[in-house]
Amino acid sequence: MARQLYELCGTDPARIFSPYCWRSRMALAHKGLDFESVPWRFTETDRLAFVGHDKVPVLVDGAKVVADSWDIALHLDAAYPDRPSLMRGNPAPYRLVAAWNDATVQAGIARLVVSDIPPLLGEAERTYFVTSREKRFGMPLGQVTADRAARLPAFREALHPLRMVVRGQAFLGGDTPDYADMIVFGSFMWARSVSDFALLEPGDAVYRWRERMLDLHGGMARQTPHFGA
Amino acid sequence: MARQLYELCGTDPARIFSPYCWRSRMALAHKGLDFESVPWRFTETDRLAFVGHDKVPVLVDGAKVVADSWDIALHLDAAYPDRPSLMRGNPAPYRLVAAWNDATVQAGIARLVVSDIPPLLGEAERTYFVTSREKRFGMPLGQVTADRAARLPAFREALHPLRMVVRGQAFLGGDTPDYADMIVFGSFMWARSVSDFALLEPGDAVYRWRERMLDLHGGMARQTPHFGA
Repeated sequence: MARQLYELCGTDPARIFSPYCWRSRMALAHKGLDFESVPWRFTETDRLAFVGHDKVPVLVDGAKVVADSWDIALHLDAAYPDRPSLMRGNPAPYRLVAAWNDATVQAGIARLVVSDIPPLLGEAERTYFVTSREKRFGMPLGQVTADRAARLPAFREALHPLRMVVRGQAFLGGDTPDYADMIVFGSFMWARSVSDFALLEPGDAVYRWRERMLDLHGGMARQTPHFGA
Repeated sequence: MARQLYELCGTDPARIFSPYCWRSRMALAHKGLDFESVPWRFTETDRLAFVGHDKVPVLVDGAKVVADSWDIALHLDAAYPDRPSLMRGNPAPYRLVAAWNDATVQAGIARLVVSDIPPLLGEAERTYFVTSREKRFGMPLGQVTADRAARLPAFREALHPLRMVVRGQAFLGGDTPDYADMIVFGSFMWARSVSDFALLEPGDAVYRWRERMLDLHGGMARQTPHFGA
């Protein structure tokens, strides 16, 4: 049985845009593990009934089925200990990395790009997406991002902890990337896949870090369909 | 030669208030290593001439002299591998923890308590401290903290990543503390040692985490001179 990764997309099955799917996609590449991408859309919860879970990513790895990007990372380190490590035997500090990323990077990006997502979705998913996100934000999505240019400096400033680290070393993982890089990069790949809004300036150490991540694995992330840099 | 830790204090040598000194102090306790605290004040740079460094903490560990809390943590893990680990063989993700802490927790606390520090200092250090900090903030220290009650909700909100993790587990390190806990706790111990301004509410998961940290090693941190909770 081929290894399969269920990943979120819209009308274009090659345009994977869930930040969590990008974490798993980069984790598999880091481990050097081939996989077949199984496109999945927001409304196809019935296709995940076999998992007992309603969200992607879902990894089918032989007889093992793993839902949730965090559990997928733990599984990959446990099942393939001889391949490059994701969390190097100690997942604990990566939880704070993920919590920081979700509260800061990802929440910040959402408010900068969310209105660019609906045009990429089929009709049924678009209705689901717009309804659920407008409920979350309490306003039309166009209104969420209306002042995004004005909020961009604050978003860039909020990246300061990341900037401090990647000024002094190539990756959050040190000389080589680890799962901390994949967590944060996933959010940037989400933005890149759905929006041409420029989040980073080329002179920024975070920009240069993102370039290094885009170059990994023969430019795997760089080559996927995208709008932004 | 007894193990010695040079630590920042004011007129009371038992009131250690540098957040970085607290990181090292907790790290030594975590390792179960005895040490003699050597009180040091801001103006006593000549007493650190033997280190080639002008800040504390400085650890003198037998023939080895280590400056900087980060390097002290690395040294302790390398020199005492059979004792409880601080960074579990992989320092990389702790760098982002430290960068997040410094940019968010510590910078936030500074703006809430900095004006409470001068009364704890002798005259010479007080002049140094007030002058250098007023230059950094660009205003009198009393003005920095004047609206602290109004800014407290934003500070508590900024602790969200920490809160997310310690809601689900006892420590950032998991079931037991590790150096991530010590990094963040150091900032809270700084506040507790110099100010009675209440940073946290008892109902907050971050408050309960701080209580667990205060209880470690027979209440070592709890028993030091302090104002706040």
